[in-house]
Amino acid sequence: MAHIDLRVDEQQFPGIAGLMRYRPETAKPIGELTDLLLHAPHSLPAGDRELIGAYVSGLNECTFCRDSHSMIAATHLDAGLPLVRQVLADPDTAPISPKLRALLRIAAAVQRSGREVTTEMVEAARTEGATDLEIHDTVLITAAFCMANRYVDGLGTLALDAPEQYEEAAKGIVAGGYAMRLVPGAAGT
Amino acid sequence: MAHIDLRVDEQQFPGIAGLMRYRPETAKPIGELTDLLLHAPHSLPAGDRELIGAYVSGLNECTFCRDSHSMIAATHLDAGLPLVRQVLADPDTAPISPKLRALLRIAAAVQRSGREVTTEMVEAARTEGATDLEIHDTVLITAAFCMANRYVDGLGTLALDAPEQYEEAAKGIVAGGYAMRLVPGAAGT
Repeated sequence: MAHIDLRVDEQQFPGIAGLMRYRPETAKPIGELTDLLLHAPHSLPAGDRELIGAYVSGLNECTFCRDSHSMIAATHLDAGLPLVRQVLADPDTAPISPKLRALLRIAAAVQRSGREVTTEMVEAARTEGATDLEIHDTVLITAAFCMANRYVDGLGTLALDAPEQYEEAAKGIVAGGYAMRLVPGAAGT
Repeated sequence: MAHIDLRVDEQQFPGIAGLMRYRPETAKPIGELTDLLLHAPHSLPAGDRELIGAYVSGLNECTFCRDSHSMIAATHLDAGLPLVRQVLADPDTAPISPKLRALLRIAAAVQRSGREVTTEMVEAARTEGATDLEIHDTVLITAAFCMANRYVDGLGTLALDAPEQYEEAAKGIVAGGYAMRLVPGAAGT
Protein backbone atom coordinates (compact mmCIF):
# COMPACT_ATOMS: atom_id res chain seq x y z
CA MET A 1 0.00 0.00 0.00
CA ALA A 2 1.26 3.47 -0.87
CA HIS A 3 2.70 5.76 1.86
CA ILE A 4 -0.14 8.24 1.29
CA ASP A 5 -3.84 7.75 0.53
CA LEU A 6 -3.99 7.89 -3.28
CA ARG A 7 -7.81 7.53 -3.30
CA VAL A 8 -7.67 4.91 -6.09
CA ASP A 9 -7.73 1.11 -6.39
CA GLU A 10 -3.96 0.51 -6.62
CA GLN A 11 -4.44 -2.85 -8.32
CA GLN A 12 -6.25 -1.03 -11.13
CA PHE A 13 -3.87 1.97 -11.14
CA PRO A 14 -0.45 0.62 -10.04
CA GLY A 15 2.83 2.56 -9.98
CA ILE A 16 2.75 6.01 -11.53
CA ALA A 17 -0.87 5.61 -12.73
CA GLY A 18 -2.25 6.15 -9.22
CA LEU A 19 0.12 9.09 -8.63
CA MET A 20 -1.03 10.74 -11.85
CA ARG A 21 -4.63 10.51 -10.71
CA TYR A 22 -3.75 11.81 -7.23
CA ARG A 23 -2.09 15.00 -8.56
CA PRO A 24 -3.41 15.80 -12.07
CA GLU A 25 -1.66 19.21 -12.15
CA THR A 26 1.82 17.64 -12.08
CA ALA A 27 0.63 14.67 -14.17
CA LYS A 28 0.07 16.92 -17.17
CA PRO A 29 3.69 18.10 -17.73
CA ILE A 30 5.06 14.67 -16.69
CA GLY A 31 2.83 13.02 -19.31
CA GLU A 32 3.86 15.54 -21.97
CA LEU A 33 7.57 15.12 -21.23
CA THR A 34 7.24 11.31 -21.30
CA ASP A 35 5.42 11.41 -24.62
CA LEU A 36 8.06 13.68 -26.21
CA LEU A 37 10.94 11.54 -25.01
CA LEU A 38 9.53 8.06 -25.63
CA HIS A 39 6.70 8.20 -28.15
CA ALA A 40 6.97 11.27 -30.42
CA PRO A 41 8.63 10.85 -33.84
CA HIS A 42 12.41 10.66 -33.41
CA SER A 43 15.58 9.47 -35.16
CA LEU A 44 15.95 6.93 -32.33
CA PRO A 45 13.26 4.23 -32.68
CA ALA A 46 10.68 4.18 -29.86
CA GLY A 47 11.73 0.62 -29.03
CA ASP A 48 15.32 1.78 -28.39
CA ARG A 49 14.15 4.70 -26.26
CA GLU A 50 11.94 2.37 -24.20
CA LEU A 51 14.89 -0.03 -23.80
CA ILE A 52 16.92 2.84 -22.30
CA GLY A 53 14.07 3.53 -19.86
CA ALA A 54 13.59 -0.12 -18.90
CA TYR A 55 17.37 -0.58 -18.47
CA VAL A 56 17.72 2.50 -16.22
CA SER A 57 14.68 1.40 -14.18
CA GLY A 58 16.36 -1.98 -13.70
CA LEU A 59 19.53 -0.27 -12.46
CA ASN A 60 17.37 1.74 -10.05
CA GLU A 61 15.60 -1.49 -9.00
CA CYS A 62 12.20 0.07 -9.70
CA THR A 63 10.03 -2.98 -10.40
CA PHE A 64 6.98 -1.11 -11.72
CA CYS A 65 8.90 1.02 -14.24
CA ARG A 66 11.26 -1.80 -15.24
CA ASP A 67 8.45 -4.28 -15.96
CA SER A 68 5.97 -1.87 -17.55
CA HIS A 69 8.58 -0.31 -19.87
CA SER A 70 10.07 -3.75 -20.63
CA MET A 71 6.63 -4.71 -21.93
CA ILE A 72 6.29 -1.47 -23.91
CA ALA A 73 9.76 -1.97 -25.44
CA ALA A 74 8.87 -5.58 -26.25
CA THR A 75 5.67 -4.44 -27.96
CA HIS A 76 7.71 -2.11 -30.17
CA LEU A 77 10.48 -4.62 -30.98
CA ASP A 78 10.18 -7.62 -33.29
CA ALA A 79 12.41 -9.67 -30.98
CA GLY A 80 10.08 -9.03 -28.03
CA LEU A 81 10.66 -9.69 -24.31
CA PRO A 82 13.59 -12.12 -24.76
CA LEU A 83 15.70 -9.33 -26.30
CA VAL A 84 14.58 -6.85 -23.63
CA ARG A 85 15.65 -9.30 -20.92
CA GLN A 86 19.06 -9.76 -22.59
CA VAL A 87 19.61 -5.99 -22.70
CA LEU A 88 18.65 -5.54 -19.04
CA ALA A 89 20.90 -8.45 -18.02
CA ASP A 90 23.95 -7.28 -20.00
CA PRO A 91 23.90 -4.61 -22.72
CA ASP A 92 27.50 -5.48 -23.65
CA THR A 93 26.56 -8.93 -24.96
CA ALA A 94 22.94 -8.34 -26.09
CA PRO A 95 22.41 -8.36 -29.90
CA ILE A 96 21.81 -4.62 -30.33
CA SER A 97 23.41 -1.99 -32.56
CA PRO A 98 26.81 -0.53 -31.54
CA LYS A 99 25.10 2.88 -31.39
CA LEU A 100 22.48 1.75 -28.87
CA ARG A 101 25.19 -0.02 -26.86
CA ALA A 102 27.20 3.23 -26.68
CA LEU A 103 24.09 5.19 -25.64
CA LEU A 104 23.31 2.61 -22.92
CA ARG A 105 26.83 3.15 -21.53
CA ILE A 106 26.06 6.87 -21.24
CA ALA A 107 22.73 5.98 -19.59
CA ALA A 108 24.47 3.74 -17.04
CA ALA A 109 26.79 6.61 -16.12
CA VAL A 110 23.96 9.15 -15.81
CA GLN A 111 21.99 6.71 -13.62
CA ARG A 112 24.84 6.83 -11.08
CA SER A 113 25.51 10.57 -11.47
CA GLY A 114 25.57 13.08 -14.29
CA ARG A 115 29.17 13.74 -13.28
CA GLU A 116 30.17 10.23 -14.38
CA VAL A 117 29.63 10.95 -18.09
CA THR A 118 33.01 11.34 -19.79
CA THR A 119 34.07 12.96 -23.06
CA GLU A 120 35.21 9.48 -24.16
CA MET A 121 31.72 8.01 -23.69
CA VAL A 122 30.20 10.81 -25.75
CA GLU A 123 32.85 10.46 -28.46
CA ALA A 124 32.27 6.69 -28.59
CA ALA A 125 28.55 7.26 -29.20
CA ARG A 126 29.35 9.80 -31.92
CA THR A 127 31.73 7.33 -33.59
CA GLU A 128 28.83 4.85 -33.79
CA GLY A 129 26.67 7.47 -35.48
CA ALA A 130 24.80 9.11 -32.57
CA THR A 131 23.78 12.73 -33.17
CA ASP A 132 23.92 15.53 -30.61
CA LEU A 133 20.13 15.33 -30.20
CA GLU A 134 20.29 11.55 -29.64
CA ILE A 135 22.99 12.03 -26.99
CA HIS A 136 20.96 14.85 -25.40
CA ASP A 137 17.81 12.75 -25.33
CA THR A 138 19.60 9.67 -23.97
CA VAL A 139 20.78 11.79 -21.03
CA LEU A 140 17.32 13.34 -20.53
CA ILE A 141 15.47 9.99 -20.86
CA THR A 142 17.80 8.50 -18.25
CA ALA A 143 17.37 11.54 -15.99
CA ALA A 144 13.57 11.41 -16.40
CA PHE A 145 13.54 7.72 -15.40
CA CYS A 146 15.69 8.58 -12.37
CA MET A 147 12.84 10.94 -11.47
CA ALA A 148 10.00 8.51 -12.24
CA ASN A 149 11.68 5.58 -10.45
CA ARG A 150 12.10 7.68 -7.28
CA TYR A 151 8.57 9.08 -7.54
CA VAL A 152 7.02 5.61 -7.89
CA ASP A 153 9.09 3.90 -5.17
CA GLY A 154 9.45 6.93 -2.87
CA LEU A 155 5.69 6.90 -2.36
CA GLY A 156 5.61 3.11 -2.01
CA THR A 157 3.21 2.41 -4.87
CA LEU A 158 2.20 -1.05 -6.03
CA ALA A 159 3.97 -3.01 -8.79
CA LEU A 160 2.26 -5.89 -10.59
CA ASP A 161 3.83 -9.38 -10.56
CA ALA A 162 5.32 -9.65 -14.08
CA PRO A 163 5.90 -7.67 -17.30
CA GLU A 164 3.13 -9.68 -18.98
CA GLN A 165 0.57 -8.04 -16.69
CA TYR A 166 1.25 -4.73 -18.44
CA GLU A 167 0.53 -6.15 -21.89
CA GLU A 168 -2.81 -4.41 -22.45
CA ALA A 169 -1.56 -1.05 -21.13
CA ALA A 170 1.57 -1.38 -23.28
CA LYS A 171 -0.50 -1.91 -26.42
CA GLY A 172 -2.49 1.22 -25.63
CA ILE A 173 0.68 3.30 -25.12
CA VAL A 174 2.36 1.97 -28.28
CA ALA A 175 -0.79 2.85 -30.24
CA GLY A 176 -1.68 6.19 -28.67
CA GLY A 177 1.29 7.54 -26.71
CA TYR A 178 1.59 8.77 -23.14
CA ALA A 179 0.03 12.18 -22.99
CA MET A 180 -3.53 10.90 -23.26
CA ARG A 181 -2.95 7.80 -21.13
CA LEU A 182 -1.35 9.58 -18.20
CA VAL A 183 -3.46 12.69 -17.95
CA PRO A 184 -6.73 12.12 -16.13
CA GLY A 185 -9.67 13.62 -17.89
CA ALA A 186 -7.97 13.46 -21.29
CA ALA A 187 -9.64 11.49 -24.05
CA GLY A 188 -9.53 7.76 -23.45
CA THR A 189 -8.82 7.77 -19.69
CA MET B 1 32.17 23.29 -22.32
CA ALA B 2 29.11 21.10 -22.73
CA HIS B 3 29.38 17.59 -24.26
CA ILE B 4 27.19 18.70 -27.20
CA ASP B 5 27.01 21.95 -29.15
CA LEU B 6 24.24 23.89 -27.37
CA ARG B 7 24.47 26.80 -29.84
CA VAL B 8 24.39 29.39 -27.02
CA ASP B 9 26.88 31.43 -25.02
CA GLU B 10 27.17 29.16 -21.96
CA GLN B 11 28.38 32.00 -19.76
CA GLN B 12 25.11 33.80 -20.49
CA PHE B 13 22.95 30.63 -20.33
CA PRO B 14 24.71 28.31 -17.83
CA GLY B 15 23.38 24.98 -16.52
CA ILE B 16 19.83 24.12 -17.51
CA ALA B 17 19.25 27.50 -19.24
CA GLY B 18 21.32 26.46 -22.27
CA LEU B 19 19.65 23.02 -22.38
CA MET B 20 16.21 24.63 -22.37
CA ARG B 21 17.16 26.74 -25.35
CA TYR B 22 18.67 23.76 -27.15
CA ARG B 23 15.48 21.65 -26.89
CA PRO B 24 12.44 23.95 -26.45
CA GLU B 25 9.95 21.07 -26.88
CA THR B 26 11.12 19.33 -23.69
CA ALA B 27 11.79 22.68 -21.99
CA LYS B 28 8.06 23.47 -21.95
CA PRO B 29 6.85 20.59 -19.73
CA ILE B 30 10.03 20.77 -17.59
CA GLY B 31 9.36 24.49 -16.99
CA GLU B 32 5.71 23.84 -16.16
CA LEU B 33 6.54 21.02 -13.73
CA THR B 34 9.20 23.16 -12.03
CA ASP B 35 6.80 26.07 -11.65
CA LEU B 36 4.08 23.87 -10.14
CA LEU B 37 6.46 22.25 -7.66
CA LEU B 38 8.50 25.29 -6.59
CA HIS B 39 6.63 28.50 -7.36
CA ALA B 40 2.84 27.93 -7.54
CA PRO B 41 0.76 28.65 -4.41
CA HIS B 42 1.20 25.83 -1.88
CA SER B 43 0.83 25.02 1.81
CA LEU B 44 4.64 24.59 1.89
CA PRO B 45 6.30 28.03 1.54
CA ALA B 46 8.29 28.47 -1.68
CA GLY B 47 11.44 29.07 0.40
CA ASP B 48 11.06 25.63 2.03
CA ARG B 49 10.47 23.96 -1.36
CA GLU B 50 13.56 25.66 -2.77
CA LEU B 51 15.56 24.53 0.27
CA ILE B 52 14.58 20.92 -0.50
CA GLY B 53 15.78 21.39 -4.08
CA ALA B 54 19.06 23.05 -3.10
CA TYR B 55 19.70 20.38 -0.44
CA VAL B 56 19.07 17.49 -2.88
CA SER B 57 21.28 19.18 -5.50
CA GLY B 58 24.02 19.40 -2.88
CA LEU B 59 23.68 15.68 -2.15
CA ASN B 60 23.94 15.04 -5.91
CA GLU B 61 26.97 17.37 -6.06
CA CYS B 62 25.35 19.37 -8.88
CA THR B 63 27.02 22.76 -8.51
CA PHE B 64 24.77 24.69 -10.92
CA CYS B 65 21.48 23.51 -9.34
CA ARG B 66 22.80 23.73 -5.76
CA ASP B 67 24.07 27.30 -6.12
CA SER B 68 21.23 28.67 -8.25
CA HIS B 69 18.49 27.21 -6.01
CA SER B 70 20.43 28.21 -2.87
CA MET B 71 20.19 31.79 -4.14
CA ILE B 72 16.49 31.43 -4.99
CA ALA B 73 15.79 29.95 -1.52
CA ALA B 74 17.80 32.77 0.07
CA THR B 75 15.78 35.36 -1.86
CA HIS B 76 12.56 33.85 -0.47
CA LEU B 77 13.80 33.50 3.13
CA ASP B 78 14.31 36.36 5.61
CA ALA B 79 17.41 34.62 7.02
CA GLY B 80 19.02 34.51 3.56
CA LEU B 81 22.09 32.54 2.39
CA PRO B 82 23.53 31.88 5.89
CA LEU B 83 20.45 29.78 6.76
CA VAL B 84 20.55 28.01 3.38
CA ARG B 85 24.19 27.10 3.97
CA GLN B 86 23.38 25.73 7.44
CA VAL B 87 20.60 23.54 6.00
CA LEU B 88 22.83 22.19 3.24
CA ALA B 89 25.64 21.49 5.72
CA ASP B 90 23.42 19.73 8.29
CA PRO B 91 19.61 19.81 8.30
CA ASP B 92 19.59 18.12 11.73
CA THR B 93 21.12 21.14 13.48
CA ALA B 94 19.91 24.02 11.23
CA PRO B 95 17.26 26.30 12.81
CA ILE B 96 14.28 25.10 10.74
CA SER B 97 10.86 23.77 11.70
CA PRO B 98 10.54 20.12 12.84
CA LYS B 99 8.20 19.58 9.86
CA LEU B 100 10.76 20.76 7.29
CA ARG B 101 13.44 18.69 9.04
CA ALA B 102 11.26 15.57 8.74
CA LEU B 103 10.58 16.32 5.06
CA LEU B 104 14.32 16.77 4.40
CA ARG B 105 14.90 13.30 5.89
CA ILE B 106 12.45 11.89 3.34
CA ALA B 107 14.24 13.87 0.61
CA ALA B 108 17.64 12.46 1.64
CA ALA B 109 16.23 8.93 1.37
CA VAL B 110 14.62 9.55 -2.04
CA GLN B 111 17.90 11.06 -3.32
CA ARG B 112 19.60 7.70 -2.67
CA SER B 113 16.66 5.58 -3.89
CA GLY B 114 12.89 5.70 -3.65
CA ARG B 115 13.14 2.31 -1.97
CA GLU B 116 14.86 3.88 1.04
CA VAL B 117 11.76 5.77 2.19
CA THR B 118 10.29 4.02 5.23
CA THR B 119 6.85 4.09 6.85
CA GLU B 120 8.57 5.52 9.94
CA MET B 121 9.95 8.52 7.99
CA VAL B 122 6.50 9.25 6.56
CA GLU B 123 4.85 8.87 9.98
CA ALA B 124 7.46 11.20 11.53
CA ALA B 125 6.62 13.88 8.96
CA ARG B 126 2.88 13.43 9.64
CA THR B 127 3.48 13.76 13.39
CA GLU B 128 5.12 17.14 12.70
CA GLY B 129 2.06 18.26 10.75
CA ALA B 130 2.91 17.34 7.13
CA THR B 131 -0.09 16.59 4.93
CA ASP B 132 -0.29 13.83 2.30
CA LEU B 133 0.13 16.44 -0.45
CA GLU B 134 3.23 17.89 1.26
CA ILE B 135 4.75 14.40 1.56
CA HIS B 136 3.85 13.69 -2.09
CA ASP B 137 5.37 16.93 -3.28
CA THR B 138 8.53 16.48 -1.18
CA VAL B 139 9.08 13.13 -2.92
CA LEU B 140 8.32 14.58 -6.37
CA ILE B 141 10.47 17.72 -5.82
CA THR B 142 13.37 15.48 -4.78
CA ALA B 143 12.79 13.17 -7.76
CA ALA B 144 12.58 16.15 -10.15
CA PHE B 145 15.92 17.49 -8.84
CA CYS B 146 17.44 14.02 -9.30
CA MET B 147 16.36 14.45 -12.94
CA ALA B 148 17.55 18.05 -13.33
CA ASN B 149 20.90 17.40 -11.61
CA ARG B 150 21.62 14.48 -13.97
CA TYR B 151 20.43 16.47 -17.01
CA VAL B 152 22.67 19.43 -16.20
CA ASP B 153 25.80 17.44 -15.28
CA GLY B 154 25.25 14.55 -17.70
CA LEU B 155 25.62 16.99 -20.58
CA GLY B 156 28.57 18.73 -18.94
CA THR B 157 27.05 22.22 -18.78
CA LEU B 158 28.70 25.22 -17.17
CA ALA B 159 28.18 26.29 -13.54
CA LEU B 160 28.98 29.83 -12.39
CA ASP B 161 31.47 30.42 -9.58
CA ALA B 162 29.23 31.25 -6.62
CA PRO B 163 25.55 31.45 -5.54
CA GLU B 164 25.81 35.25 -5.60
CA GLN B 165 26.24 35.16 -9.40
CA TYR B 166 22.65 33.90 -9.67
CA GLU B 167 21.23 36.84 -7.71
CA GLU B 168 19.60 38.64 -10.61
CA ALA B 169 18.14 35.44 -12.10
CA ALA B 170 16.88 34.44 -8.65
CA LYS B 171 15.03 37.76 -8.22
CA GLY B 172 13.34 37.21 -11.59
CA ILE B 173 12.22 33.69 -10.66
CA VAL B 174 10.97 34.72 -7.21
CA ALA B 175 8.95 37.51 -8.85
CA GLY B 176 7.69 35.73 -11.95
CA GLY B 177 8.09 31.98 -11.54
CA TYR B 178 9.73 29.37 -13.75
CA ALA B 179 7.38 28.75 -16.64
CA MET B 180 8.10 32.07 -18.34
CA ARG B 181 11.82 32.09 -17.48
CA LEU B 182 12.59 28.61 -18.74
CA VAL B 183 10.53 28.45 -21.91
CA PRO B 184 12.23 30.18 -24.83
CA GLY B 185 9.92 32.45 -26.71
CA ALA B 186 7.68 33.02 -23.70
CA ALA B 187 7.20 36.57 -22.46
CA GLY B 188 10.30 37.98 -20.80
CA THR B 189 12.88 35.59 -22.29
